[in-house]
Amino acid sequence: MTRERQSDGLGLVERRTMTWLDPLVLESGAQLAPVTLAYEAYGRLNAARDNAILLLHALSGDAHAAGWHAGAAKPGWWDAMVGPGRPFDTDRYFVICSNVIGGCQGSTGPSSADLATGRAYGARFPVITIGDMVRAQARLIDRLGIAQLLAVAGGSMGGFQALEWATALPERVRGTILLATSARSSPQTVAWNAIGRRAIVSDPRWRSGDYYGGEPPTDGLAIARMIGHITYLSEPALEHKFGRAFQDGSGPAFSLDREFAIESYLDYQGAIFNARFDANSYLYITKAMDYWDLPARYGSLDAALARSRSEFLLLSFSSDWLYPPGESQLIADALTRLGRAPTYASLESSAGHDAFLVDYQPQGPIISEFLGALAGTST
Amino acid sequence: MTRERQSDGLGLVERRTMTWLDPLVLESGAQLAPVTLAYEAYGRLNAARDNAILLLHALSGDAHAAGWHAGAAKPGWWDAMVGPGRPFDTDRYFVICSNVIGGCQGSTGPSSADLATGRAYGARFPVITIGDMVRAQARLIDRLGIAQLLAVAGGSMGGFQALEWATALPERVRGTILLATSARSSPQTVAWNAIGRRAIVSDPRWRSGDYYGGEPPTDGLAIARMIGHITYLSEPALEHKFGRAFQDGSGPAFSLDREFAIESYLDYQGAIFNARFDANSYLYITKAMDYWDLPARYGSLDAALARSRSEFLLLSFSSDWLYPPGESQLIADALTRLGRAPTYASLESSAGHDAFLVDYQPQGPIISEFLGALAGTST
Repeated sequence: MTRERQSDGLGLVERRTMTWLDPLVLESGAQLAPVTLAYEAYGRLNAARDNAILLLHALSGDAHAAGWHAGAAKPGWWDAMVGPGRPFDTDRYFVICSNVIGGCQGSTGPSSADLATGRAYGARFPVITIGDMVRAQARLIDRLGIAQLLAVAGGSMGGFQALEWATALPERVRGTILLATSARSSPQTVAWNAIGRRAIVSDPRWRSGDYYGGEPPTDGLAIARMIGHITYLSEPALEHKFGRAFQDGSGPAFSLDREFAIESYLDYQGAIFNARFDANSYLYITKAMDYWDLPARYGSLDAALARSRSEFLLLSFSSDWLYPPGESQLIADALTRLGRAPTYASLESSAGHDAFLVDYQPQGPIISEFLGALAGTST
Repeated sequence: MTRERQSDGLGLVERRTMTWLDPLVLESGAQLAPVTLAYEAYGRLNAARDNAILLLHALSGDAHAAGWHAGAAKPGWWDAMVGPGRPFDTDRYFVICSNVIGGCQGSTGPSSADLATGRAYGARFPVITIGDMVRAQARLIDRLGIAQLLAVAGGSMGGFQALEWATALPERVRGTILLATSARSSPQTVAWNAIGRRAIVSDPRWRSGDYYGGEPPTDGLAIARMIGHITYLSEPALEHKFGRAFQDGSGPAFSLDREFAIESYLDYQGAIFNARFDANSYLYITKAMDYWDLPARYGSLDAALARSRSEFLLLSFSSDWLYPPGESQLIADALTRLGRAPTYASLESSAGHDAFLVDYQPQGPIISEFLGALAGTST
């Protein structure tokens, strides 16, 4: 993959927003209006309108899944997986990705203007759930004239949304691709998210969420992101990437300042995250993740999955300790009990939770085959 | 164990401080003077002065290893292990524990007065190492008239100190007991410590370390402690203890406030830690931990351990992901290569890293037997 590859190599690329004025009734009972979704789309919707795939992004992702934006230093977050001849083959499929509500990359979120007050919602934004994110996405899929998606696909929180699609809107999904995910947020993931939120709201610049136009709570968001980063990487990956190297190569300075390469890396990750992400969105999206508990909603995991009608592909990664293979195994086992013959592969990887974003080599052929089989049996 | 058990059941209990006016030359080259160590001692030093055991505490520990202080809600941190008939049998051994330098429980640390300025050191306290902690402890052992310790014993950072004793002062240690520890801080543990430090120094009340007499950086220290707590517990323990329970039992409030029991637990842990610990000590002690790298100091782990003359007992705990069994295995393997026949047991436990403090049942008999064998062969 080279920098020169341009988005137009992806075929028709849409990059736009869509807005609905009628309120979205949220799981909390609150109403959100208007609702804007930013989305990108690659490839072409076929005449039968049955080749659409919805990609679902993780906590810090956005609608920019593939291709290059002008002047950008990096392509979209799943660029290696989306394009002509790639697993999500834009010569064959119409691939859509939208920014979640609550986000900060074009979709309605806490940094959006509240029409009732004329200023940004801040912490007055309603608390949202994974179900709310998906019902907003369903409006987009309706508007695009797609009755049924060939597949929904996502990793981590993207997998939560994919599971939500498969169980809440079963008629609309033919295939569900779940990567490095879980049917519920574990107490440990809730804990990491809660500590990140505590860091944000403890930053005096958070100002109860009303920091827009002033200095944002960059320390708090940086700390939250640093915690996240360590949970995304495996211990062997940290050993390999940083070991105990000193940033300047010369050994202890006997100072309280940062000295180790891993410390510089974390500081850098915190800083660049601040340049692209909104602290309030971090609060809202992690809260939506914490609420995620599919078994609790329907009484059991089996009862939840019995609602779905789709085929399932599950991939997990051996060194992922945030969403360990056992979480995917629970879903695969439940589907098997239901006679649904899921495809499940636990892949060897040293990349930790990040593997779903970076180890595209082993996942590519499996996803490609799964999609091909789905499309081949398309009526 | 009941609250009624009093310290005097431990035999002679000393609880005092000792101060040295001559400077302690630190690994950095800086000098620290005066140096005060707070210590407790249980049992009686025998006439041969060969029944002394030095206990070494972890990051947040102190000299109060056993027994009850007047009015305290809890006994010392290793009370279940220290006392008459307990593994560290005070009917038989003279058991000593001192607060590390850099600490905040009576030994010289950043909250101590700097005689040069008449005010607390704060961030002007010199950066210390595990080796510095041990050289301060050696002064105490000298002053107590003990040429050779029957054993040194510690878990986590206490294990670092025990390894330092065994390799830097090999003539002075007959037995080394290492629990849930490592010969070096891994990049991941450095990362967690670094994020905790970042939270402290980002708290505006830290005021470059000069908060004494004013409001301390309680948010920063709470966040650091919360991170620590999650690393000390295993995922199964979190599931068992908290699961996804809501604190008020009633389900989502659709609020940004804390709602889950695990969140309340973390907040509580952060609050009570602030009541007993100093944020600057947290900075200095975690920095000392981060520097810990025994193989690097002597060229290899084998070269380091070849210096020691003691017997070794190593215990690790299956669900400890902060100092996983593999770290102890590396030490045991090196000792075995050196023909030193260490005793190593990897114990099953669901308590995570905390197991060394709470799972005393399986460790007790092993430690008791190791000490008995050492004492039995005493000249």
